[in-house]
Amino acid sequence: MSTFIPPNERRVQSPHLPFGDQRGAPFYGNDILSVLQFNREDLDYIFEVAKEMRAMVERVGTFDLLKGKILANLFYEPSTRTSSSFFSAMERLGGSVIPINEVHYSSVAKGESLPDTIRSLECYADVIVIRHPEVGSAKLASEYAQKPVINAGDGPGEHPTQALLDLFTIMEELERVDGLTVTMLGDLKHGRTVHSLARLLSLFVVRLNYVSPEILRMPSELIEDLSVQGVSQKEFRELDEVLPETDVLYVTRVQKERFEDPKEYEKAKGAYVITPQTMQKAKDEMIVMHPLPRVGEISMELDQDPRAAYFRQMEYGLYLRMALLAMVLGKA
Amino acid sequence: MSTFIPPNERRVQSPHLPFGDQRGAPFYGNDILSVLQFNREDLDYIFEVAKEMRAMVERVGTFDLLKGKILANLFYEPSTRTSSSFFSAMERLGGSVIPINEVHYSSVAKGESLPDTIRSLECYADVIVIRHPEVGSAKLASEYAQKPVINAGDGPGEHPTQALLDLFTIMEELERVDGLTVTMLGDLKHGRTVHSLARLLSLFVVRLNYVSPEILRMPSELIEDLSVQGVSQKEFRELDEVLPETDVLYVTRVQKERFEDPKEYEKAKGAYVITPQTMQKAKDEMIVMHPLPRVGEISMELDQDPRAAYFRQMEYGLYLRMALLAMVLGKA
Amino acid sequence: MSTFIPPNERRVQSPHLPFGDQRGAPFYGNDILSVLQFNREDLDYIFEVAKEMRAMVERVGTFDLLKGKILANLFYEPSTRTSSSFFSAMERLGGSVIPINEVHYSSVAKGESLPDTIRSLECYADVIVIRHPEVGSAKLASEYAQKPVINAGDGPGEHPTQALLDLFTIMEELERVDGLTVTMLGDLKHGRTVHSLARLLSLFVVRLNYVSPEILRMPSELIEDLSVQGVSQKEFRELDEVLPETDVLYVTRVQKERFEDPKEYEKAKGAYVITPQTMQKAKDEMIVMHPLPRVGEISMELDQDPRAAYFRQMEYGLYLRMALLAMVLGKA
Repeated sequence: MSTFIPPNERRVQSPHLPFGDQRGAPFYGNDILSVLQFNREDLDYIFEVAKEMRAMVERVGTFDLLKGKILANLFYEPSTRTSSSFFSAMERLGGSVIPINEVHYSSVAKGESLPDTIRSLECYADVIVIRHPEVGSAKLASEYAQKPVINAGDGPGEHPTQALLDLFTIMEELERVDGLTVTMLGDLKHGRTVHSLARLLSLFVVRLNYVSPEILRMPSELIEDLSVQGVSQKEFRELDEVLPETDVLYVTRVQKERFEDPKEYEKAKGAYVITPQTMQKAKDEMIVMHPLPRVGEISMELDQDPRAAYFRQMEYGLYLRMALLAMVLGKA
Repeated sequence: MSTFIPPNERRVQSPHLPFGDQRGAPFYGNDILSVLQFNREDLDYIFEVAKEMRAMVERVGTFDLLKGKILANLFYEPSTRTSSSFFSAMERLGGSVIPINEVHYSSVAKGESLPDTIRSLECYADVIVIRHPEVGSAKLASEYAQKPVINAGDGPGEHPTQALLDLFTIMEELERVDGLTVTMLGDLKHGRTVHSLARLLSLFVVRLNYVSPEILRMPSELIEDLSVQGVSQKEFRELDEVLPETDVLYVTRVQKERFEDPKEYEKAKGAYVITPQTMQKAKDEMIVMHPLPRVGEISMELDQDPRAAYFRQMEYGLYLRMALLAMVLGKA
Repeated sequence: MSTFIPPNERRVQSPHLPFGDQRGAPFYGNDILSVLQFNREDLDYIFEVAKEMRAMVERVGTFDLLKGKILANLFYEPSTRTSSSFFSAMERLGGSVIPINEVHYSSVAKGESLPDTIRSLECYADVIVIRHPEVGSAKLASEYAQKPVINAGDGPGEHPTQALLDLFTIMEELERVDGLTVTMLGDLKHGRTVHSLARLLSLFVVRLNYVSPEILRMPSELIEDLSVQGVSQKEFRELDEVLPETDVLYVTRVQKERFEDPKEYEKAKGAYVITPQTMQKAKDEMIVMHPLPRVGEISMELDQDPRAAYFRQMEYGLYLRMALLAMVLGKA
């Protein structure tokens, strides 16, 4: 579908109607490409629908809102977590999924262009989810597709549904976003997850702390963009200084391959591991998040701590993606 | 299922009954192995059902004609386009699909024979679609299977559902086949697609033009077979001569690996690319087809031309395969 | 779910209630990890449900007992036969399947632990089937999962659903187990299939014959365990001696890689091939079983013999797995 229609023009100004009535479906036919396409009103709406999805899953498991609809789950890179989440979201809404994994995507090997692949697939599907290693690929796909396209990660670009589910997790767990102190920890240079989340959070009144090794600092362009928007941001090398005031600790992986000197890696890695001991300095009412998979950044001993929200975060992802699928297909 | 029952014996002589009534299901339990198994009466019937499928998809998206039926989609070679098409066809009819891709088919690695694989799979499925690199594999499978087998390409052998969807596309787009001039372009030597389509077209009153490089000419056996049937056929090196009279231009890929001399390839390749300029010499009422994927044989600039039928062709494939699945399962 | 609750404590002491009423679902929420967890009363119950599944499949194909439930089919090793069987079982019960094949399971490559993978997946699914190359992996998974886990093979460990379907096959084909003579043939050292089946059979009054090359004998620990239980067991080098008295001949593969000397392999291999001629010495009322795939251990000429039960065995596997899925999800 065509994209980048300003949110306010895109929206039909009508109250939220019951499920299945497309008059009240403000995202009907839209693509989900970037966190930049959403304003606060959009987020309120998305989260309202996601909450309804949660209630319905808890009550009845699945329901037939998208019966007869088919999702093409097109993954040029493996990502079982994300693909399973969309898969389950579609099935829980009564729809079907065509799973297409990169290793099978023979036409790519034969040299087919992404636009041709998309135009072929949309003959068989009602909505396309795409994960692709190149920045801009989801946008390119959306320009050729007549069906809605959802970006499930375009390389170092964006992963908007992850950022939305992260924000939804904060909302559900802490019941507000305004006024919170969010501390992001780890590799803030390469993590598209923290970049997208920071941009979404800039729509709210929050304080952001960035804690990372020197070589993995949050990109200065992003910091500048958010400064212009008036977001309070601070950088740190150590978590200790900011943990006591933190409401949301967002942990990310520090990857070995980012370091030239293995010793630097070992040093950095050790400094950013969260254990029950670390958490003694944290508030009682706060949450620890992680986009997963983790590889040692959070010790398994923390899993029993009620503040450990990372597995609940996965579950919120299901409801959020159900909401998005229902919305772009005109059923919410 | 046993195969090669002559079409007229196979058919139950009864009028077309409503969906779901097997008395009126002339292909119930049949295999789809080769275009040679169909006569014109069969084609009329298949296309009639495919048209109904189209109408129903456009009206309601999916329906539960094959609810409770399971398709084993067995691909020993990757072919996302074909496998997705069957997948979607089955799901749109309310059935389920077990996707089995060659890379997973562990038993093959363990040395299991195709007959054993088929007899195992049919314990779990109601119909088997098979793509396999060896000629005759689908027929072999059908000899052991008690459930219907559909050939989705057996190496350089046949790909009957592609030929049927090609013919259905012509029917739907031009509303007839008799009297048409069909020009086939590109690699006519190796393309099983054009071979099967030419054989199907020989059941109608058509003129066939074959345009190819010298080393990629249509096989003489096929030309002779069709001559015996009285089909008018002519060969050319250049498209220019025949484009003005062409009703259907069927373009295929010219693969680099077919040429010993890379220069020969570059020359041939350039000579068979269809652009908007090429199309200036074509009729207003004609169509350009391509089995896809294309790799430069048709310029993307042509996609907006209403005569460019290759993406619609994909969609006709969905309806055609829905028809075949419903038919062999006794529901049409 | 937590495991190793003794069967009798686990069971709710109530009569078998109609489908869908969880009060009468004694295995509701249980894991299926090992044949050791079942007593005869359990087996009676499982087979009773499996018989009902068979009747319902034969009558209506599929039914909606598990509508709204999702199975995560998590295969770290390829095994199309087993994964297709669970896939079909879930679909025939109206449920959905998320297929996760090892080659896609990217998080593993990123170093994620099995517990984390399981806790992520269970956000999306209601039941998890796992095949993994390491002994104990299914048990480990079950300790972290809140949803039921079914072991579909943990390396050289167990494959309990195979043993259950084997026993169900004997029950259905010969209408009893007590009093039978079961002869196991081939590689009895490495075959987890025969180990698990032998343990299950030890709950009945049977005579077991083990026929194998010297280097592939049944492990002495297993023989001792069964002796303690009072099972009559004998070992042989040749099938001839015991075939005439055999009620169930269970054939397994003799793998080349188990032998240091290729000549030894050729000798062993030839000695354990079942042909129509071999079968002349067998009873009229007996069955030949094989877990499949076979690679020459049973000649294809035997397939027409009504005593050849190995393809029917596959089909019993479908009903057995339907029963287990319905049971752990509280619907039987």
